[in-house]
Amino acid sequence: MTGKIFVVGMGPGGQEHISPKAMEVMQTSDIIAGYKTYIDLIKPILPEKEYASSGMKKEVERCEEVMQLAKEGKTVSLISSGDAGIYGMAGIMIEVVNAHNSNIDVEVIPGISAATSAASLLGAPLMNDFVTLSLSDLLTPWELIVKRLHAAGSGDFVIALYNPRSKTRIKNLDVAIETLLQYQKPETPVGFVKHAMREKQEVHYTTLGELKNCDIDMFTTVIIGNSRTEMVGGKMVTIRGYKI
Amino acid sequence: MTGKIFVVGMGPGGQEHISPKAMEVMQTSDIIAGYKTYIDLIKPILPEKEYASSGMKKEVERCEEVMQLAKEGKTVSLISSGDAGIYGMAGIMIEVVNAHNSNIDVEVIPGISAATSAASLLGAPLMNDFVTLSLSDLLTPWELIVKRLHAAGSGDFVIALYNPRSKTRIKNLDVAIETLLQYQKPETPVGFVKHAMREKQEVHYTTLGELKNCDIDMFTTVIIGNSRTEMVGGKMVTIRGYKI
Repeated sequence: MTGKIFVVGMGPGGQEHISPKAMEVMQTSDIIAGYKTYIDLIKPILPEKEYASSGMKKEVERCEEVMQLAKEGKTVSLISSGDAGIYGMAGIMIEVVNAHNSNIDVEVIPGISAATSAASLLGAPLMNDFVTLSLSDLLTPWELIVKRLHAAGSGDFVIALYNPRSKTRIKNLDVAIETLLQYQKPETPVGFVKHAMREKQEVHYTTLGELKNCDIDMFTTVIIGNSRTEMVGGKMVTIRGYKI
Repeated sequence: MTGKIFVVGMGPGGQEHISPKAMEVMQTSDIIAGYKTYIDLIKPILPEKEYASSGMKKEVERCEEVMQLAKEGKTVSLISSGDAGIYGMAGIMIEVVNAHNSNIDVEVIPGISAATSAASLLGAPLMNDFVTLSLSDLLTPWELIVKRLHAAGSGDFVIALYNPRSKTRIKNLDVAIETLLQYQKPETPVGFVKHAMREKQEVHYTTLGELKNCDIDMFTTVIIGNSRTEMVGGKMVTIRGYKI
């Protein structure tokens, strides 16, 4: 009796953005596991399922628990918001299964990422080459994050910023803004979205020069334009170069 | 009587990865417009709808046609594969509506991107900061693409390559590989996926040093690892730094 593990990206939140494939594997799983906030989003949609929820920053323990359930023969869906392969649980789950020398199959089910859901609400800021960058220095050294900010600026990339600010991580965003202002004008369009496609959704536009004064928190995805990003009819668009 | 335009990301291909929201707006639209290849994917799923398909490289004409239909009061879904805001139709549609000084509403419906669907099949290569980069120099100057390759290499980013090679664009990928080999080892894991989540799907693993010998075409998404990317239990994973 061999179990199976699905790592499922549930998209931005509501049922209308969960793919039929993701819904199917959650429905056919014995147990749905994940961080409490995500479990609370799924429970109203699939109220009959068995759940295993865990706290924040307990990623390894969560994967060990999923591993144990799969060893007992269960089919388990481990859920992440957005896409499970972008700063989500997919990588660590594969690592934990490998560390156990187990042949339990881990299948990753993709979802709509936080960057694309935020971008769709802002207009079309990701129409050309872009960088996806987290400002959290919990797992990535801050020096490397700064190096990547310089690289993103020097390459004139649009930037989708994840984890821009938390209660304990205030200044990282300020340093990121200062760094990018070495490469982009203060008027460069910036958009940010809080609670994308959830009840408390907020969509805001600002500029790179004004971003430091904006109310950014851990539920915010920030998209910083490049030299070709413009406000077009009230929306943020990175011009790709078609002749209109 | 005012029309409405939805720009819809349909994900990698099959119905199981189209979000309920995308399906709903296509179902309630008067007409579904798009590039012929994508229309052919949707027709079997929604056979009763009216369609307007167009050829490749006719992006501006396609948007003008959608604009005209919306002016006549129609609700139109303009579809792209993957996410419509990533090298898709979202930006140009907003530009065309703006150029007509029209107040017709353009709503972008996000989808599962080619990068995330390919990544999910390969394992978890996008677990940390990454660059999304197109090697097509139809709209972006080649010098800028090379500059971005250097930036991506110097920042030790994972890279999701779009449009890696076409029949008329053979050498761009070779130059990209040579450029990245200035920053990453030849053993750096690389994965590539053809026809992700469609009938002819192929999933391949190689290395940066061997990539030049692989059969890459315009239906391929290539993901190039960084210094922290490893093959873990047969899958490509970028290590984020959790203590297992």
